[in-house]
Amino acid sequence: MSAQQPLPSHAGAPLRGQRKKIRAGVLGATGIVGQRLVSLLADHPWFELTEVAASERSSGKTYAEAARWHLDAPIPGAARDLVVKGLDPSLDCDFVFSALDSSVAGAAEEEFARAGYPVVSNSRNHRTDPDVPLLIPEVNAAHLDAIPRQQKNRGYDTGFIVTNPNCSTAGLVLVLKPLADAFGLEKAFVVTLQAISGAGYPGVASLDIQGNVVPFISGEEEKMESEPQKLLGKWDGSRFVDAGLGLSAHCNRVPVVDGHLECVSVGLKKIASLDEVREALRNFEVDAELASLPTALRNPIIVLDEENRPQPRRDVNAGNGMAAVVGRVRECPLLDVKLTLLSHNLVRGAAGASLLNAELLAARGFLKQRVAPSGSQLAEPVSR
Amino acid sequence: MSAQQPLPSHAGAPLRGQRKKIRAGVLGATGIVGQRLVSLLADHPWFELTEVAASERSSGKTYAEAARWHLDAPIPGAARDLVVKGLDPSLDCDFVFSALDSSVAGAAEEEFARAGYPVVSNSRNHRTDPDVPLLIPEVNAAHLDAIPRQQKNRGYDTGFIVTNPNCSTAGLVLVLKPLADAFGLEKAFVVTLQAISGAGYPGVASLDIQGNVVPFISGEEEKMESEPQKLLGKWDGSRFVDAGLGLSAHCNRVPVVDGHLECVSVGLKKIASLDEVREALRNFEVDAELASLPTALRNPIIVLDEENRPQPRRDVNAGNGMAAVVGRVRECPLLDVKLTLLSHNLVRGAAGASLLNAELLAARGFLKQRVAPSGSQLAEPVSR
Amino acid sequence: MSAQQPLPSHAGAPLRGQRKKIRAGVLGATGIVGQRLVSLLADHPWFELTEVAASERSSGKTYAEAARWHLDAPIPGAARDLVVKGLDPSLDCDFVFSALDSSVAGAAEEEFARAGYPVVSNSRNHRTDPDVPLLIPEVNAAHLDAIPRQQKNRGYDTGFIVTNPNCSTAGLVLVLKPLADAFGLEKAFVVTLQAISGAGYPGVASLDIQGNVVPFISGEEEKMESEPQKLLGKWDGSRFVDAGLGLSAHCNRVPVVDGHLECVSVGLKKIASLDEVREALRNFEVDAELASLPTALRNPIIVLDEENRPQPRRDVNAGNGMAAVVGRVRECPLLDVKLTLLSHNLVRGAAGASLLNAELLAARGFLKQRVAPSGSQLAEPVSR
Amino acid sequence: MSAQQPLPSHAGAPLRGQRKKIRAGVLGATGIVGQRLVSLLADHPWFELTEVAASERSSGKTYAEAARWHLDAPIPGAARDLVVKGLDPSLDCDFVFSALDSSVAGAAEEEFARAGYPVVSNSRNHRTDPDVPLLIPEVNAAHLDAIPRQQKNRGYDTGFIVTNPNCSTAGLVLVLKPLADAFGLEKAFVVTLQAISGAGYPGVASLDIQGNVVPFISGEEEKMESEPQKLLGKWDGSRFVDAGLGLSAHCNRVPVVDGHLECVSVGLKKIASLDEVREALRNFEVDAELASLPTALRNPIIVLDEENRPQPRRDVNAGNGMAAVVGRVRECPLLDVKLTLLSHNLVRGAAGASLLNAELLAARGFLKQRVAPSGSQLAEPVSR
Repeated sequence: MSAQQPLPSHAGAPLRGQRKKIRAGVLGATGIVGQRLVSLLADHPWFELTEVAASERSSGKTYAEAARWHLDAPIPGAARDLVVKGLDPSLDCDFVFSALDSSVAGAAEEEFARAGYPVVSNSRNHRTDPDVPLLIPEVNAAHLDAIPRQQKNRGYDTGFIVTNPNCSTAGLVLVLKPLADAFGLEKAFVVTLQAISGAGYPGVASLDIQGNVVPFISGEEEKMESEPQKLLGKWDGSRFVDAGLGLSAHCNRVPVVDGHLECVSVGLKKIASLDEVREALRNFEVDAELASLPTALRNPIIVLDEENRPQPRRDVNAGNGMAAVVGRVRECPLLDVKLTLLSHNLVRGAAGASLLNAELLAARGFLKQRVAPSGSQLAEPVSR
Repeated sequence: MSAQQPLPSHAGAPLRGQRKKIRAGVLGATGIVGQRLVSLLADHPWFELTEVAASERSSGKTYAEAARWHLDAPIPGAARDLVVKGLDPSLDCDFVFSALDSSVAGAAEEEFARAGYPVVSNSRNHRTDPDVPLLIPEVNAAHLDAIPRQQKNRGYDTGFIVTNPNCSTAGLVLVLKPLADAFGLEKAFVVTLQAISGAGYPGVASLDIQGNVVPFISGEEEKMESEPQKLLGKWDGSRFVDAGLGLSAHCNRVPVVDGHLECVSVGLKKIASLDEVREALRNFEVDAELASLPTALRNPIIVLDEENRPQPRRDVNAGNGMAAVVGRVRECPLLDVKLTLLSHNLVRGAAGASLLNAELLAARGFLKQRVAPSGSQLAEPVSR
Repeated sequence: MSAQQPLPSHAGAPLRGQRKKIRAGVLGATGIVGQRLVSLLADHPWFELTEVAASERSSGKTYAEAARWHLDAPIPGAARDLVVKGLDPSLDCDFVFSALDSSVAGAAEEEFARAGYPVVSNSRNHRTDPDVPLLIPEVNAAHLDAIPRQQKNRGYDTGFIVTNPNCSTAGLVLVLKPLADAFGLEKAFVVTLQAISGAGYPGVASLDIQGNVVPFISGEEEKMESEPQKLLGKWDGSRFVDAGLGLSAHCNRVPVVDGHLECVSVGLKKIASLDEVREALRNFEVDAELASLPTALRNPIIVLDEENRPQPRRDVNAGNGMAAVVGRVRECPLLDVKLTLLSHNLVRGAAGASLLNAELLAARGFLKQRVAPSGSQLAEPVSR
Repeated sequence: MSAQQPLPSHAGAPLRGQRKKIRAGVLGATGIVGQRLVSLLADHPWFELTEVAASERSSGKTYAEAARWHLDAPIPGAARDLVVKGLDPSLDCDFVFSALDSSVAGAAEEEFARAGYPVVSNSRNHRTDPDVPLLIPEVNAAHLDAIPRQQKNRGYDTGFIVTNPNCSTAGLVLVLKPLADAFGLEKAFVVTLQAISGAGYPGVASLDIQGNVVPFISGEEEKMESEPQKLLGKWDGSRFVDAGLGLSAHCNRVPVVDGHLECVSVGLKKIASLDEVREALRNFEVDAELASLPTALRNPIIVLDEENRPQPRRDVNAGNGMAAVVGRVRECPLLDVKLTLLSHNLVRGAAGASLLNAELLAARGFLKQRVAPSGSQLAEPVSR
């Protein structure tokens, strides 16, 4: 059964002594991930959405006109009338989220970073850059130490780029982390059953997926076999050192709306009983800094005992979509442990991941109210 | 793209010099596998369906009345008016197929064998018996040598039991066989995405599977990890010797009507290039004896080159449902080769499998026209 | 886009001066409608769930053990440990909801009423009884006047039976009501596309509905053609007088989880423009008594302007599942107006309907704290 | 249960005395309807596919390269290597099918007709032209009499345009025809549940239709309310006279691959029993001319007696996809008769409809081997 955890209370440290929320822009705001970000930013305690931008011809329209809205809950009132801007780095905000398509994200994110904006990106373009953190706060918060080096390398001033992993990597690595910590990790074999919303909109044609499985998602297996190496690896002060994990991935698309299910077998360095594995997952708890982030769960892994769970349609919203839900922990005849995991591809795997990254950045003081260039209107933010 | 192979021509050896077809009964004829058998037996060149039997209260009705028919093609004319009998071993036929539910198959099949009927079973009950062949003709036809020992062990006269594997094992082992022959097989990791028809009717409730995946099928992983050991192993004259293969299976139910898809990684004993693997699969060809069986394909493995195939809805009927369709042969970072395979769970994995087994038995002379007990009506079969 | 309306504030009149909530039992608590009721009763301001009962063998188990839980939110804590009782009218509660299967509901509901329990039923058995109100509070609250007559007719003391309509009737009549009031209603033609959850669990077999439509639901067209007559008719002091509406229904099952969609054409007595029709629907507002009920919406009809709405998956939860969502109001060449409507079959069409009925009964003083028979434990309700 | 009728034998009149088949081109050959046409033309007894053309950038590629093939059966061998031409009316064929998108069909079809090609079109552009037959051979073969007038009006020489109706109109009118003949037809109310393949490829996004219904198909209701008027009307020698039928349509998209289901209520001019209605449908038989067409069914309407049929997934291929399958004939409280009908939207409603139209045109001598312009290669058709 899906468990709903209350969001942790938080001190709101980033806003201490501030009179205003940190102003956020969303690049790629009309897409399916951008919409989730806009939705999650409504009533956010630390951030205020002040700009929406997109690469398409939607510039000039209001957000309500430009977005073909996909969420059940309506467009947040504060976003409806925002005018959609182009991808020009002159937005009235303190940092930007990037939910841009990879065809334009690479250059656009660099331009914004160069112009002084912290860029919190969901796009794949810079994930493997040697000086760009690929971040899951619960897993590798220390990788943020790479930001100063990135700024120095690239001649960025206040701007920088931080990325979150691919939607199917996010849940996997969140589950591998406590196993790596407790028992050491040698190998992992993973087969994904991924939801159609992972392909965006219009995305997968119904004629292709109705009553069917498509055993191929372009580039996905490559991402799943490489991103965890960086995420579970270390920043040694000058570069990221891979985790050296043996990893094999098969990726499939299934006719499910939201939620990527993953069948995983792991080989551990230390012998562990199934109960020890379950406990390591269940007891995985974030530290005080993370627990204070508005979007964080204190226990981001939920372990179900029913033999036929997790199921995408029933468990995808556990932990407000930020949990990795694990079930069927059992012995693997080839490696050590088999398990099934589920995570929400649009929340934990995309918009929620970016938001949590931004919250950690804010908590660590990386997101400051931007001082506008002289003569700019930014010096006197219009009241809203 | 799905390929349709013409059925091989065949010499019809079993009928040489016979005036009549071999008479077949189907136990469990009203179920979803039984219906496929009834359908496949229409116009069969060697076999004639003369009896349908079932455990349920359907006894006494005609088959058309008793069967809630699931196939697109109508009930074969010759079957419509057959009266459904109970599971009493006094049927007017030379051998029986068993598509019985496992709750009754164990005892019923033994009773029929003891009464002199060859039993060609799709049920799981006797698959692991030490003297019962678990047969895929293309894989282990030599296991039929165990029949005389079985008859001796059990005091059967002309009767015996031969089984076919579980629906998800069938496709897997058919694909593993040429790899084992060509390169030697060490390990295999398999994750299944299984169709709802594999659970029979009414089977999976729509509320459980609509837009969902159920990551559990009772007993399925155990079968997939044990049956291939016997299938790929040897009969040493007195017992079956397991193949000693390392095997790990995760089984899932997906909202697909027919066709089990399997994501497989295999570890080989000899180094092989991907092209060599593809060729070994593509060139897998049955011998002359098998090629003469009405239901056999000369090349039972079809290898597709498109990057996003096989797909259940599009490829399930390849080779009249008797092929294993393979695609996405590629390197595996953990083992040696990754591939995706598809087979029709009701044809190659059940009814077609039983039928092919019966054909091999007929070709080898194991299915004879039964001599009826004295005083029985069997001595003078009614013309039909 | 789906609109979420805040629940109306309410005065809580029924509890004024009471120290305890009214105690509710649920008959048929383990079924799919019973589960919804149990869920809706958690944290209800007026009612407290004190008993769960079922006809099946589940008696004696706790509710958590007995119910195969279908909702995303977990079983309410207060219900988990309730012991499931049989259908004996000796439950420790002030009234009962009945979500019983129609095979047992008829007699069981009468027994409870005779034993003094108000019975708020979702079952079809007594809907057409000449002295039993078939109630949608927004439509025919005056029908409650029949209760004294029912009690007199049947020799009931404090007990009685009130029913809510069939799941597909509920949304239809809610939408027809303001049209009847504003313009007079002559005829209505309706074709339903009904969700699988309407058939209960296990209900529709996945093999029957996957990628398919079943153009038949047993008894459904008959209910849709008769129930609105009573709902839109009058209680004349001694009997219900039908509305005399011309009604034709076609009912279909479609592969949707929740939400019955209905294509409706209506013939009106007065000429009305499409805008007048839209306004009559949009402005349909309940009176102060109804507005004070916890589950009531002030405006129970939501009219969408998008040309392709309402859609079940996207709009089913509008108004917490208690709204009828209307779209595509347009001219009908045969009758006067075409429209499409959607309502949640398990909330507005079943559990929410019963709950709203109970709330109206409570507001009107029909649900009193029962005086326990002498010697009974009911005299001193255990604290909970 | 779905019935499969054998195709009628046919005299092959159009080819009598001819040494070669009539050469057909397909405009819009790469689309989903074009692919069906290409598939149906393989092994056609009268027609030979010699040209494929498309408006897109696919020109110059072979058909196998250009078409993203959607059918289960592979691309016919004779079509694989045809080079895809542009929409220039210089194709090496005797007539063309048009499966073009309506954005280009209007002008292109006129150009081909003007250049001397008979155009057998599935596109909507010319369906309502006052001199263009909208043809269902079983319904209004006499409308072909309009062709000479069309040629005169437009200054066409040997060319002309004949169209078939919209996919959801086709099945409806086929069923209305015998009712109109036997009892007279006053009114019809129809609600469609249409398959996703009706929207082409990529067509409906899976995120829009997964577990959902979309109660809107652009332009569809208008077509369904107007096309039957022309189809069931008369050609009076100079113009088409509408049938004057009262018609109301609601159109919905449902998650079904192939097959449009329609819930229909009809008002008849003469009183008829339900049995008379069933018999009129069941006995609807084409005349000798039509029966000789390769694609025609002698009895194009199949009436099922099961209470829950027709169903799209199970009955769509009845009569090779050329039948209208009717079930649930019952009384309508508002009009006279309710029934449910199903037809294959891509066969009876599109490609098969065009093909049958072409066959009727051939049988009547409208499709002649074109004499090539002097100096053209057409004078000496290359042997194929």
